[in-house]
Amino acid sequence: MTHFYWICEEIDGAARAGTLYTAHGVVQTPTFMPVGTVGTVKAMTADSVRATGAQMILGNTYHLMLRPGIEKIYALGGLHRFIDWSGPILTDSGGFQVMSLGSLRKIDEDGVTFHSHIDGSLHRLTPQNTTHMQHKLDATITMCFDECPALPAPNDIIAASMRRSMRWAERSREAYIPREGYAQFGIVQGGTEAELRAESVTALTKIGFEGYAIGGLAVGEEQNIMFQTLDVTTPLMPADKPRYLMGVGTPEDLLGSVLRGVDMFDCVMPTRAGRTARAYTERGIINLRNARHAIDARPISPECDCLACVRHSRAYLHHLFRAREILGPMLLTWHNLAYYQRLMRQIRNAILHKQLSALSQKLHMQWQSGDWTENDMPQPHLHAATSLCPIP
Amino acid sequence: MTHFYWICEEIDGAARAGTLYTAHGVVQTPTFMPVGTVGTVKAMTADSVRATGAQMILGNTYHLMLRPGIEKIYALGGLHRFIDWSGPILTDSGGFQVMSLGSLRKIDEDGVTFHSHIDGSLHRLTPQNTTHMQHKLDATITMCFDECPALPAPNDIIAASMRRSMRWAERSREAYIPREGYAQFGIVQGGTEAELRAESVTALTKIGFEGYAIGGLAVGEEQNIMFQTLDVTTPLMPADKPRYLMGVGTPEDLLGSVLRGVDMFDCVMPTRAGRTARAYTERGIINLRNARHAIDARPISPECDCLACVRHSRAYLHHLFRAREILGPMLLTWHNLAYYQRLMRQIRNAILHKQLSALSQKLHMQWQSGDWTENDMPQPHLHAATSLCPIP
Repeated sequence: MTHFYWICEEIDGAARAGTLYTAHGVVQTPTFMPVGTVGTVKAMTADSVRATGAQMILGNTYHLMLRPGIEKIYALGGLHRFIDWSGPILTDSGGFQVMSLGSLRKIDEDGVTFHSHIDGSLHRLTPQNTTHMQHKLDATITMCFDECPALPAPNDIIAASMRRSMRWAERSREAYIPREGYAQFGIVQGGTEAELRAESVTALTKIGFEGYAIGGLAVGEEQNIMFQTLDVTTPLMPADKPRYLMGVGTPEDLLGSVLRGVDMFDCVMPTRAGRTARAYTERGIINLRNARHAIDARPISPECDCLACVRHSRAYLHHLFRAREILGPMLLTWHNLAYYQRLMRQIRNAILHKQLSALSQKLHMQWQSGDWTENDMPQPHLHAATSLCPIP
Repeated sequence: MTHFYWICEEIDGAARAGTLYTAHGVVQTPTFMPVGTVGTVKAMTADSVRATGAQMILGNTYHLMLRPGIEKIYALGGLHRFIDWSGPILTDSGGFQVMSLGSLRKIDEDGVTFHSHIDGSLHRLTPQNTTHMQHKLDATITMCFDECPALPAPNDIIAASMRRSMRWAERSREAYIPREGYAQFGIVQGGTEAELRAESVTALTKIGFEGYAIGGLAVGEEQNIMFQTLDVTTPLMPADKPRYLMGVGTPEDLLGSVLRGVDMFDCVMPTRAGRTARAYTERGIINLRNARHAIDARPISPECDCLACVRHSRAYLHHLFRAREILGPMLLTWHNLAYYQRLMRQIRNAILHKQLSALSQKLHMQWQSGDWTENDMPQPHLHAATSLCPIP
């Protein structure tokens, strides 16, 4: 059996390059986990997710308990087998999702009672039962049940919420059954207050987890506030354990957070953008619905080796989105996940060579430089077979 | 350069096994062409279409002229390059589509004027311009412009329509520029009347085409009427040229039509069914939305080697369709096209061994025998890694 552990291979400032060993395989960090909310990374086969270079994906207890149901997945051999992903899977506890249900949920000291957003049926999540559910899903990494208030919020609300999350973390830990190669992560809360974050880290490390997440960020605050919060939080977190910033973010967010000592990320941005014609690239976001792409024979990015870029033109992607063809989201989700994975590999390599600061400057310059011009990326020379014949 | 020709390799009754040689590669017949209406076989990448065994696909002049426009595709290097399909492509002329527009179109002796179903803009299709458009698309096989009346219809309407189609076939041929490895097919019309079909075949063979299609069937008539029409039509058609039955059909339709001497087919059924949870199988159609599949760990079919069957359970497919995930249509379209291609390979092999009659009996028996039972296809033995641990 494999132990679950993280090895730090290099440090560059606060940034860390390492490798995570799990029961379901290794993950090189910093890493980005594509989100497979309801048992599928939307518009992707498991093979195409692998082809982007992704090593670990995320599943969601809240969504899976409602549909198809935890017991069904358990009876079918667990989440890995159900969705055909043999690599590591991290499952969120459902805390974040039930908090966003608003009037559909009621919080008490022991957990949250809520109505399903699908059929209104009544359900309950507690630190104990979400931990057991994640066990039955066979999650490689189980997340503690936590409360995640939206920002901004009054300090006393944030403090009370964080302290309840810490009590829930203790109960989550008690409910967790250790297994070789598996892990449970605690979640640091405390809004944007340094003192509350510090109190939360202390509480969690006292309990002791295989890794630590930072929750309650990217929930409405500015990027610089998020970075300031990381600046006062990550230095307090155990140096020998992986650090996971939940639900983040843009390429700029990822880079800035790695620079502040974060190792793991998840976010729906690349997959959601892929369904709405927005392509992440080295030159920022390109909207393929824009008319200027209608007869552009160039790929989305000359630096990308995804299926969309190697085989198709911007004009084709533009056409697919205009005609509302499923292949549009399929190809562009692939592209965006490939970009995120390439970005993380670049960042990791830079850390290994202690060049992250230089890479950071270069990436920011490129992101701000705008789309490739015809000079940067010339139109390919095209000729149809018919060009040999007189065309009427 | 490659000549366009069809070689008959074996005959079994009226059924023929052969090979079609084209500028864009060979096609083994009988063959089924997946439909790529708007420049994509819906929910499939070009690679996944290839993986099903498909050798030729169909494009649609009507849809492509409206979106993205023929000149755009021409400027982008032709349809093959635009959609990343290097194999042969047959393009329909648009005749069938404009006929189904009803009040949006007006027919005259020279062609059809119609309003776009997308934005209402005014367009015109004639024998000349659809032939030129298919040239610009770089279609391997260009179809004549024809009129396709819905059945049933009075005899004199069918006769007048067929005769106009024959005049249009002559003008289509005049507008066609022959190229090595390319072809133009005439389309036999005449409803279900043997005499009209015979008159149509005579008119077309007098003009002379590289292949002949049968149009105006599968437009509302019973299957036995379609078969009776084939019985009096295919024997009149040139024996040394490929025969293409347009827009057909179910697995039973394909088998019955091959038995009557047809070599080529296209139909939206497998792709459309794939988006609505209906799986074609050796045991008939299986609806994966049905609750009985909710915890069925077995594949759709034990005889299928598509991605959906090799890697996923019926329960997973059921879940994907219930959760309206894009991956459901992706996997099931793949499955259905793989089934259609496997069926055509079985049929072709049977002809080569002069065993088509026996295969036909076997296939019909299987289609009628209903879904696999637990005896026919046992549940796989499942165990999650967690089954080794006490489960709360």
